[in-house]
Amino acid sequence: MNNTFSRGLRGKTHRRRGNTPIAAKKPADIVPPIGDAIRIIPLGGVEEIGKNMTVIEYGNDILVVDAGIQFTDDDTPGVDYILPNIKYLEERKDRIRGIVITHGHLDHIGGIPYLITRLGNPPIYTREFGALLIQKRQAEFPHLAPLDIRIIDATDKSLPIGEHLKIRFFGLTHSIPDSTGIIIETPYGDIVNTGDVRIENEGGVPVEREIEQYKMFKDRKVLLFTMDSTGIDKPGFSPSEASILKNIDKIVAEAPGRVIIATFASQVERIIEFLNTARRYGRKVLIEGRSMKTNVDIIKHLNLVDTSHIVPIEEIEKYPPNKIMMIATGAQGEEFAALMRMSNKTHKLVRLQASDTVILSSSVIPGNDRAVEKLKDNLFRHDARIITYLDSDVHTSGHGKRGELEWVHRQIPYKYFMPVHGSHFRLKMHAELARSLGCPPENIIVPENGSIIEIQDKGEKLVRLPEKAPSDDMVVEGLSIGDISEVVIRDRKMLAEDGIFVVIALVHARTGRLKKSPDIIARGFVYLRESQDLLSEARLVIKRSIESTTVGANPINFDHTKNIVTEDVSRFLFQRTAKKPIVIPVILGV
Amino acid sequence: MNNTFSRGLRGKTHRRRGNTPIAAKKPADIVPPIGDAIRIIPLGGVEEIGKNMTVIEYGNDILVVDAGIQFTDDDTPGVDYILPNIKYLEERKDRIRGIVITHGHLDHIGGIPYLITRLGNPPIYTREFGALLIQKRQAEFPHLAPLDIRIIDATDKSLPIGEHLKIRFFGLTHSIPDSTGIIIETPYGDIVNTGDVRIENEGGVPVEREIEQYKMFKDRKVLLFTMDSTGIDKPGFSPSEASILKNIDKIVAEAPGRVIIATFASQVERIIEFLNTARRYGRKVLIEGRSMKTNVDIIKHLNLVDTSHIVPIEEIEKYPPNKIMMIATGAQGEEFAALMRMSNKTHKLVRLQASDTVILSSSVIPGNDRAVEKLKDNLFRHDARIITYLDSDVHTSGHGKRGELEWVHRQIPYKYFMPVHGSHFRLKMHAELARSLGCPPENIIVPENGSIIEIQDKGEKLVRLPEKAPSDDMVVEGLSIGDISEVVIRDRKMLAEDGIFVVIALVHARTGRLKKSPDIIARGFVYLRESQDLLSEARLVIKRSIESTTVGANPINFDHTKNIVTEDVSRFLFQRTAKKPIVIPVILGV
Repeated sequence: MNNTFSRGLRGKTHRRRGNTPIAAKKPADIVPPIGDAIRIIPLGGVEEIGKNMTVIEYGNDILVVDAGIQFTDDDTPGVDYILPNIKYLEERKDRIRGIVITHGHLDHIGGIPYLITRLGNPPIYTREFGALLIQKRQAEFPHLAPLDIRIIDATDKSLPIGEHLKIRFFGLTHSIPDSTGIIIETPYGDIVNTGDVRIENEGGVPVEREIEQYKMFKDRKVLLFTMDSTGIDKPGFSPSEASILKNIDKIVAEAPGRVIIATFASQVERIIEFLNTARRYGRKVLIEGRSMKTNVDIIKHLNLVDTSHIVPIEEIEKYPPNKIMMIATGAQGEEFAALMRMSNKTHKLVRLQASDTVILSSSVIPGNDRAVEKLKDNLFRHDARIITYLDSDVHTSGHGKRGELEWVHRQIPYKYFMPVHGSHFRLKMHAELARSLGCPPENIIVPENGSIIEIQDKGEKLVRLPEKAPSDDMVVEGLSIGDISEVVIRDRKMLAEDGIFVVIALVHARTGRLKKSPDIIARGFVYLRESQDLLSEARLVIKRSIESTTVGANPINFDHTKNIVTEDVSRFLFQRTAKKPIVIPVILGV
Repeated sequence: MNNTFSRGLRGKTHRRRGNTPIAAKKPADIVPPIGDAIRIIPLGGVEEIGKNMTVIEYGNDILVVDAGIQFTDDDTPGVDYILPNIKYLEERKDRIRGIVITHGHLDHIGGIPYLITRLGNPPIYTREFGALLIQKRQAEFPHLAPLDIRIIDATDKSLPIGEHLKIRFFGLTHSIPDSTGIIIETPYGDIVNTGDVRIENEGGVPVEREIEQYKMFKDRKVLLFTMDSTGIDKPGFSPSEASILKNIDKIVAEAPGRVIIATFASQVERIIEFLNTARRYGRKVLIEGRSMKTNVDIIKHLNLVDTSHIVPIEEIEKYPPNKIMMIATGAQGEEFAALMRMSNKTHKLVRLQASDTVILSSSVIPGNDRAVEKLKDNLFRHDARIITYLDSDVHTSGHGKRGELEWVHRQIPYKYFMPVHGSHFRLKMHAELARSLGCPPENIIVPENGSIIEIQDKGEKLVRLPEKAPSDDMVVEGLSIGDISEVVIRDRKMLAEDGIFVVIALVHARTGRLKKSPDIIARGFVYLRESQDLLSEARLVIKRSIESTTVGANPINFDHTKNIVTEDVSRFLFQRTAKKPIVIPVILGV
């Protein structure tokens, strides 16, 4: 008796006609044996900004660099996170020697709780700040086995992993403490991955510390260089973090009342500096927003800055306004973040007032611009002073612009180049930069997710295999982790546009006549209370449509009836409303 | 037997709990009589960028300035366009003397076909280019009465309208021919509305033509000044259109093959110049995209430029690549626009090739950034040269930046100021600009949609009434025009996230037992083919839930049963999936 259900699943509506049928699962490409090659497979992060994960394989050893998530967008309604596809790794999990983490941002560590069991719980190599963030996050998944985290540092020597590989970290500048570049030493030379990187500079001239950080490459043989491409489309150098902090210092110095700074919780280094700024001006600091509190807890734990002037938000009224600095989440207009709640007057403890100075120390992430516009509208309904990056340099990105990337290229002599971390056009632009700096085109590969790249002939040849590792997105949705269902996503998009229209009719099996007027359930279609005429007419259409196929039929062909009803009702609704809801007939014989 | 249907409409699910109940319609505020005041009511465009419409009322005469639409976004899935709320006007339509149009962009004229009948078909005063655009659009609505369009020009003298009002146009610079500022002469002084405006300049110094255009204001008494606020958040002057054209000229001169320029069809003046550029380099011009063709037809019709070198797209292979310029829509990554089709290889006639030069002569409109990223990814998969505004100045906005707005303020001595055309924070910033230029705060009003503003006491007092005109969004959806239904929109958002789960069960009225295992229809929830266990368990939960309330009950209380089933099934599904689909039980007694 499952025909209703199968109908619901397979039912054709007007709208569906153009859609492709559900594809049968393709058998995984058969990947040839690795031989003596070094294999590099970016499983994520090279067709998007997010879900970074790269496989490095040699002999019997596999290392995985990063395990990130990507946030969902309009293309995948209802999905929580997108993950790299790890099928290639699952099939070889006995050979995974470790996951190596460049830094503690979610697009580099966020996938760990969802993937670690499937990968056979390999050890995780990371620096300390990343380790603490990984553990904090893991605590939200108490059913998982404990992680095997091994903290190493940028000053440590090379650490042998597996039979032939060694890893070594080197410090670099991003926006979170312990940001790290990774050197994987292979028998044929180094594979270097910068992770995310920017260059602190003064008017386009890198500061001394940066020069120091890259000095070690003078003596190394870098076989393959892979690097963050996020900022490649913006020319020149970013404003320096020091200049940002100077501007904010001045704003804080002059602020007549409270200072409320909203920024990304991931901007940990800047948050540390805000704590110093507050101290300089005798201001107590209040931390608002869950992710902000998490990161400040780690700052405290590691004693990275004096935090004795942090007070609980409940004490906000105890201090005069000009002795308060609040550091909050919500600069991207996130619906329930601290700043949004303050701006729309739903915050439990904080009401904005005219003497407040609100600083949005952030840029607008693509996809968030409308939310940020709304946030600004809400903020401007108060009379507080609002300062954004459009008014003053109060934010700089953790991802270097083209000039910075170029400078790093010049510090690291390499043979082969593979741009990573960015959408395709960014990778292409980054490849073009490498070419313009003298790297021969045949030594550059712009990969796709799942591309299998091999360095063959003892380092002499860079090859992209015709085979690919599985690379369809995997998704986290509620409690499930798995392939994305195109069918479900397509239905959601149709439901969001035109809604659903379910017809329920009881038919006398013997006479083929309706037992009573059909029932209609509609959601997301039109406002039914104001559409009584439409509904009455629809009932007539349904009755006529059903009985045209059932009266006199013995036995009744219910599948046929349902097809006819779907077509008739869809056509009627489209003619009357120009909308195409999903029409589902439930026709029961009694 | 409507209980199923009402259940479907009113049924509570887990998710709904937090939602506000459907609000009873508020009675319209009772607006006091106008007396001797001049009344100004922005019905749209002052809490958003789009759907511009302002009411000017004096004595028995009402003038409406512009009648725009706004495009929908994620907040209103399934809606086609958003319209200003015209209830205030509908109640007074016998007094509407005309609609005055500043220029032919959709956010100023797009509402006409949907609203004109409801407004009693008043005459439309417009310059010629706008008139042609209005007529082109109206042709798509053949069931409507013909429009009463009255073309006036910027050089014309004041035109009396109604008993006491006169209108007069003045030319200004935007991005479409015949862009116009409007002067409404009242007994107490002028009301000036700039429409959309930018200032052509050389390195921040307005060109002579601009100075000429504003000279007339030296001798006028401007009572109320209202002005476009779109660009207020960007400091300084925009790059000049002349500099943009020079940059593009150079690119065209050096292009080894075809030049494909994508821009907004609304950038009519620039398109005219592209035609000149193509002629200079002996290139034939191909026009791609429906809106682009419409606007070029009008350019031809008005003979604004030599168009004899335009050739049909079908002839693209007849000319060598370096003799071709294509002007196309799609710079915003619109899914089916010409450039997108070329980029993803679905264009019928055009395949991109390595020698092509593609220029995106446009900025990214908020909300489109992800689509533009995708477009760029697709374009970069070809080896064509791609040039965007990030690489070179190939676009400037039609909306002046703060420096330009300030310059206009200085040309027009006014008493009162009301910023329009922009989201709230932009209006606030624009008000701040007026204040900084010496306008007393009490002479400035930052309006909301529906604010009723009066100039009272023969021009001596600017007042915002406590009453408001109705201002809820009206929407166009398919064939319907009307109030937005919060219920339907909320359902669509829930459907898009978690889908719908319909339970159908037949119950023996006598015994209260299920006649057979219940049917389940789910859409947009989880992929059912891979969730057979979940479905089997759900059937058990349903059976148990229903029979717990029906067995032994006589008569069966179906409403009670449905509530219990909704709760039990919602809880079960959430526990098992962490998803909250809309659960709808259909329980039929037989």
